[in-house]
Amino acid sequence: MEKIKVGVLGASGYTGADLVRLALRHPAIDLTVLTANSHAGKPMRDVFKHFSHVDLPDLISIDDADWSSVDAVFCGLPHGTTQAIAQQIFRNDPKVKIVDMSADFRLRDPDVYKEWYGLDHVATEIQPEAVYGLTEHYRDEIAGARLIACPGCYPTAVLLSLLPLATAGLIDTTDIVIDAKSGVSGAGRGLKENTLFCEAGEGLSPYAVGKHRHMAEIEQEIGKASGRQDLRVNFTPHLIPMSRGELTTSYVRLEGGSTAADLKETLLTAYASDPFVTILDGETLPQTQMVRGSNYVATNVIPDRIPGRAIVISTLDNLVKGSAGQALQNFNLAFGLDETLGLEQLPLFP
Amino acid sequence: MEKIKVGVLGASGYTGADLVRLALRHPAIDLTVLTANSHAGKPMRDVFKHFSHVDLPDLISIDDADWSSVDAVFCGLPHGTTQAIAQQIFRNDPKVKIVDMSADFRLRDPDVYKEWYGLDHVATEIQPEAVYGLTEHYRDEIAGARLIACPGCYPTAVLLSLLPLATAGLIDTTDIVIDAKSGVSGAGRGLKENTLFCEAGEGLSPYAVGKHRHMAEIEQEIGKASGRQDLRVNFTPHLIPMSRGELTTSYVRLEGGSTAADLKETLLTAYASDPFVTILDGETLPQTQMVRGSNYVATNVIPDRIPGRAIVISTLDNLVKGSAGQALQNFNLAFGLDETLGLEQLPLFP
Amino acid sequence: MEKIKVGVLGASGYTGADLVRLALRHPAIDLTVLTANSHAGKPMRDVFKHFSHVDLPDLISIDDADWSSVDAVFCGLPHGTTQAIAQQIFRNDPKVKIVDMSADFRLRDPDVYKEWYGLDHVATEIQPEAVYGLTEHYRDEIAGARLIACPGCYPTAVLLSLLPLATAGLIDTTDIVIDAKSGVSGAGRGLKENTLFCEAGEGLSPYAVGKHRHMAEIEQEIGKASGRQDLRVNFTPHLIPMSRGELTTSYVRLEGGSTAADLKETLLTAYASDPFVTILDGETLPQTQMVRGSNYVATNVIPDRIPGRAIVISTLDNLVKGSAGQALQNFNLAFGLDETLGLEQLPLFP
Amino acid sequence: MEKIKVGVLGASGYTGADLVRLALRHPAIDLTVLTANSHAGKPMRDVFKHFSHVDLPDLISIDDADWSSVDAVFCGLPHGTTQAIAQQIFRNDPKVKIVDMSADFRLRDPDVYKEWYGLDHVATEIQPEAVYGLTEHYRDEIAGARLIACPGCYPTAVLLSLLPLATAGLIDTTDIVIDAKSGVSGAGRGLKENTLFCEAGEGLSPYAVGKHRHMAEIEQEIGKASGRQDLRVNFTPHLIPMSRGELTTSYVRLEGGSTAADLKETLLTAYASDPFVTILDGETLPQTQMVRGSNYVATNVIPDRIPGRAIVISTLDNLVKGSAGQALQNFNLAFGLDETLGLEQLPLFP
Repeated sequence: MEKIKVGVLGASGYTGADLVRLALRHPAIDLTVLTANSHAGKPMRDVFKHFSHVDLPDLISIDDADWSSVDAVFCGLPHGTTQAIAQQIFRNDPKVKIVDMSADFRLRDPDVYKEWYGLDHVATEIQPEAVYGLTEHYRDEIAGARLIACPGCYPTAVLLSLLPLATAGLIDTTDIVIDAKSGVSGAGRGLKENTLFCEAGEGLSPYAVGKHRHMAEIEQEIGKASGRQDLRVNFTPHLIPMSRGELTTSYVRLEGGSTAADLKETLLTAYASDPFVTILDGETLPQTQMVRGSNYVATNVIPDRIPGRAIVISTLDNLVKGSAGQALQNFNLAFGLDETLGLEQLPLFP
Repeated sequence: MEKIKVGVLGASGYTGADLVRLALRHPAIDLTVLTANSHAGKPMRDVFKHFSHVDLPDLISIDDADWSSVDAVFCGLPHGTTQAIAQQIFRNDPKVKIVDMSADFRLRDPDVYKEWYGLDHVATEIQPEAVYGLTEHYRDEIAGARLIACPGCYPTAVLLSLLPLATAGLIDTTDIVIDAKSGVSGAGRGLKENTLFCEAGEGLSPYAVGKHRHMAEIEQEIGKASGRQDLRVNFTPHLIPMSRGELTTSYVRLEGGSTAADLKETLLTAYASDPFVTILDGETLPQTQMVRGSNYVATNVIPDRIPGRAIVISTLDNLVKGSAGQALQNFNLAFGLDETLGLEQLPLFP
Repeated sequence: MEKIKVGVLGASGYTGADLVRLALRHPAIDLTVLTANSHAGKPMRDVFKHFSHVDLPDLISIDDADWSSVDAVFCGLPHGTTQAIAQQIFRNDPKVKIVDMSADFRLRDPDVYKEWYGLDHVATEIQPEAVYGLTEHYRDEIAGARLIACPGCYPTAVLLSLLPLATAGLIDTTDIVIDAKSGVSGAGRGLKENTLFCEAGEGLSPYAVGKHRHMAEIEQEIGKASGRQDLRVNFTPHLIPMSRGELTTSYVRLEGGSTAADLKETLLTAYASDPFVTILDGETLPQTQMVRGSNYVATNVIPDRIPGRAIVISTLDNLVKGSAGQALQNFNLAFGLDETLGLEQLPLFP
Repeated sequence: MEKIKVGVLGASGYTGADLVRLALRHPAIDLTVLTANSHAGKPMRDVFKHFSHVDLPDLISIDDADWSSVDAVFCGLPHGTTQAIAQQIFRNDPKVKIVDMSADFRLRDPDVYKEWYGLDHVATEIQPEAVYGLTEHYRDEIAGARLIACPGCYPTAVLLSLLPLATAGLIDTTDIVIDAKSGVSGAGRGLKENTLFCEAGEGLSPYAVGKHRHMAEIEQEIGKASGRQDLRVNFTPHLIPMSRGELTTSYVRLEGGSTAADLKETLLTAYASDPFVTILDGETLPQTQMVRGSNYVATNVIPDRIPGRAIVISTLDNLVKGSAGQALQNFNLAFGLDETLGLEQLPLFP
């Protein structure tokens, strides 16, 4: 089999590096271009020492990349910087598929993008081509897409657990409280005081309360599933002293006489044939230790003590299923490969 | 000043040991009795090596303790074992004050105790004498009490932040969702697989969902404040990879046209003269790093994006204000001492 | 290809579980038997929740295992319990290859075994058949072995970095100081107070100073390489607040006018064709983050400030190259497979 | 008692902040000046949120400080910046005592300072007035000093455990190997990639091998004690995934027929009346958990398996006895106060 030539933009971030880690062991991928502007010219092993054992192309500047030489690019750039690059690739190299891990194309409405990210959308003409890359729910669209906007890590955990319930009308989508917890890698590799070991370690902090941008995606998708415009959910994230992993605890009100058991049954049916979504047995509670380093999501529904309410818990590895892993899963679909290729790793525990 | 002679029952647990740590530096306390049945006969420094620097009485069996020799006892025993001992002290040594850190006397109704703890209450005749030791709300009762039932760690964080709001009728007490997070020391020093370093580290787990016993206290007190019997709240705890610290995120519905600002104003007024309750400035978010190792609680109220809702966040050190520190604060009140004596330590950060 | 039928003894320990994790993705292995006496009858996912996503045989008691049904067994049992089982398999099922991860067959001299482990060796007649499974140094012997005694985690890190130097006579083997550091998983999953999260977290402890059993293996192999009987090395381990990973810092005296550069050159030559041993560039320092979750070892030699001395640093993941990974590497050799099969995973970082 | 007016320079670093934490509860100190150039104008609670509970002067620029208004200053500035300020205070405000926590005055020979720090010493005329503030060994000099150069954290741990042995001629000071381990707070609060949570967490790295500047102090003091110029020791530090705490494992060769027991006896005698130095019982091993948050040092001597060698282990909290605590202890001496004032806190465990 001739391998697919792949470039990774932003290979010096955690997301880009995890994509490289997975792509290196993917049987159909040939990693030919790695970009990282601030580290251009360096070998990847100088930037991420866990690559000391393997050979990789040196990092180059984005401006020096030749997109005509690749079949696909994964973008791990900061939000606000991907639109212009995608636009350029779209125009000049129509055969190149773009799998974007940034937020730049996730919101269908450019005005909503501007509201949340404070920036004008500079590639509105290609936004309609972007497919929201929540694999299990947009598989057909992803298969034919040129531009895949992979969801944020939190939205992936939340939507996989709540979308089937919203679609089936089992929960009141106007009364959803989502308490979310993430490891520190979710904040990226940039130098910030609050992600220093001594600041984030041995302690727990809520952040961006009432303001986190992932809310926009969650509202977009649950709103669409439940036929409500201007839906608002509560979403409150917390920074947890661990590197990887994410867990969302969603408090929902049951609708139409449904029970927690109905919710669970609906999830079991929805994901019966999905290789990476595990609906846990009995009352087994999801925990991040179940998924670390893997592309799996684990979910369960627990009855609340308050009648008419239930608790839906979901966990994933924010860098894998929440980012690079889901991107690779989408890449597989877009190139007609088995969805699980390169993603077979089991969770690493302890 | 003649010192107050004090015994600590259950000195080999984390709660007991933290009481010893604080009491050793308390100017009015003379620690004369330390019990720990399974370690009876050992020096305390063999059981907790951080006491290698100081002299302490050797550990003895409870059966060998002479209660007539002390003025007060702190009980750090497992629930279900304190009632009988308290009963015995009550009968034989009426001058001894009992500050209990277990759950045995927190619930006023013995039937509720049985429902949650699965045990018959064996000292029902002294239960009416027990004062619920939430210091800031029961100061007068504590001052004259012989038996003080210190609240659980979670209830302390939750009640200090919600009780004034419930009392003032600012929130709908039938629709409270409390997402709680605790460090691992909350689970005690007993050997359990889920609190091993490799199991609890680098990961996050919900536990006891819909079943945690601290709910009973929360419902008892919020129910009383809001005049509702059989109140039910949602309370969902999570185990966080840190040793100390606790944070509760309470999602509340505003009542009677109140706003988040009203809630905050109410808390500021309620605790204006309380030395250990800090209502944070502006939108400063509580984080456990603010209180580690200290008796402080930090709280704030943040408006929700959903109109008519607010988020009340509260944090404390589960072993100090959540247990041994509050016990010592109550002891001070009971003996007519300055409430802050021995509790002046500032938080340890980083 | 017909798959090789494999049993794992002691699948409920960390070592056994990591073997299962790797074996499940090994293309030539069919996992047919998993034993764990105390958990017999349970599904593996109840004992290790990170296996919730896959199907595995239920755990059975060792007594219920039929060894004639498998081609190989991996033993992850506590030391002292493997000799009798290996003996039995040796007698009854001569075609079954045994890859032992315990200490039971590592020491060639049963008297030395007794000295260090305090137990009589009960299978002395098969001890001569046991090959010391330090892959890179015993490849030929491993290829034909029926019984492979995989080295301890510390000896693997130490010996890979020092054996070629001792063999070449570049270091004074009578003056070696090895300061070793290990993550907590090295202590196993048994319930011990010192491996609780609150005891091992946020702190660092030396342990077994002057007494650690891995010294016996180190002395056996370095003694053999340098032709010295009764060699003694200093080996001092420390428990580090992390789950996986091990790093050894060896302080050596140079012999015969050798330099740190000579040592490094010797290591580069020795491991030029070894897929899992990385001698780092320049003065890049090994760190456990470079190898987590992978079968790689990373090593470097740094000149000491004191003339005539050098520092040799080595790191590996104690559960992979230090145990289950090396066992699988040996299995591959024993069955004539590519040495890297099933071990291709790159390190997981962060 | 009239309080001593105190300024803290560099109050926005971890060292400065820990000094503030301790000084706030010191009965004889009035904190009147806090400087932090990059945060000038802010309240301290904005820079360190654990001070949210107390009132402190706002941070000001060093240039705006009026040294004539204070009786003493603690300097927590980066090395290379304290000499000029000390010089200025020395000239203009002779009554102000300076307790320096930086490295600027620790090395008696300005050439050695230049060699290790790469900077010319700009206050050589006051260097002779500086007393090396290793409290237990320079108590008399400290009592009368105007300028106290507090030792580095590592030298404090190492020298307290080795100086009496070197002075007594019990160890060969030309053959000392010191393997040191430190928590991440030792690297300060500056933004560096290697101290991010995701980089330093769940992993272990040696650093500055053969180059760490604390070696200069160690060699200066052990050289002086043993009467050897140009002494060289091996000193190899490692970064450990914890915030506070430091442990040094020193491998020494015994001299003149001494034994490990002789070494221990010598330490017991040397520190018999020192309130903060604990020589542990029997073979109890020092661990950082014994001293966290306190001014204690814990030490023990263990016989090596190799005849004629011993292992000396020492532990302290790098921010307390290794920095701010020892500074306060020296301050107490310099002002004729009880040495333990404000330092009574017991270790925080867990």
